[in-house]
Amino acid sequence: MKPTVTIEYCPKCGWLLRAAYMAQELLTTFADELQGVLLKPSEVSGRYTICIGEQKVFDRKEMGGFPEIKEVKQLVRDVVAPGKSLGHADRKVQD
Amino acid sequence: MKPTVTIEYCPKCGWLLRAAYMAQELLTTFADELQGVLLKPSEVSGRYTICIGEQKVFDRKEMGGFPEIKEVKQLVRDVVAPGKSLGHADRKVQD
Repeated sequence: MKPTVTIEYCPKCGWLLRAAYMAQELLTTFADELQGVLLKPSEVSGRYTICIGEQKVFDRKEMGGFPEIKEVKQLVRDVVAPGKSLGHADRKVQD
Repeated sequence: MKPTVTIEYCPKCGWLLRAAYMAQELLTTFADELQGVLLKPSEVSGRYTICIGEQKVFDRKEMGGFPEIKEVKQLVRDVVAPGKSLGHADRKVQD
């Protein structure tokens, strides 16, 4: 069974579009590796978390901000397809 | 427990963007009524279905095409919030 990514976002903060953008990036990159991406409006104000199955891999409150899409893909890749190259999105900033 | 809407789309047909658009429309209109919307790449070519929980409410192959967003909202409304008005999206074409 392939894993499902859940993006839980605060709708009052206006983060639906951001969450939907990230969902589309993930579904483009990991079309074969994911069961799907669940967009979930949060009842908790200010929440923005990304989980793979039950495992939380990103939390805005803990990280103090939003992730770059490159980081999101790396976080997901490391769990669902550790051997997969992300191409230029894998290079470090100093490369 | 609020219901989850699942949009299963054929990624090879290029229907991710359409599915993501519909997800955003549903999450805007039914932010309080839905647990979330799951975007699910299909392994079956040409599939585009919309389910509420386990209940299928739309199937492209049965309907011979795609639904208008107004119809999608009416289908979802009828199951998750029968008393909810959709405003101008509830009027019939001849109005």
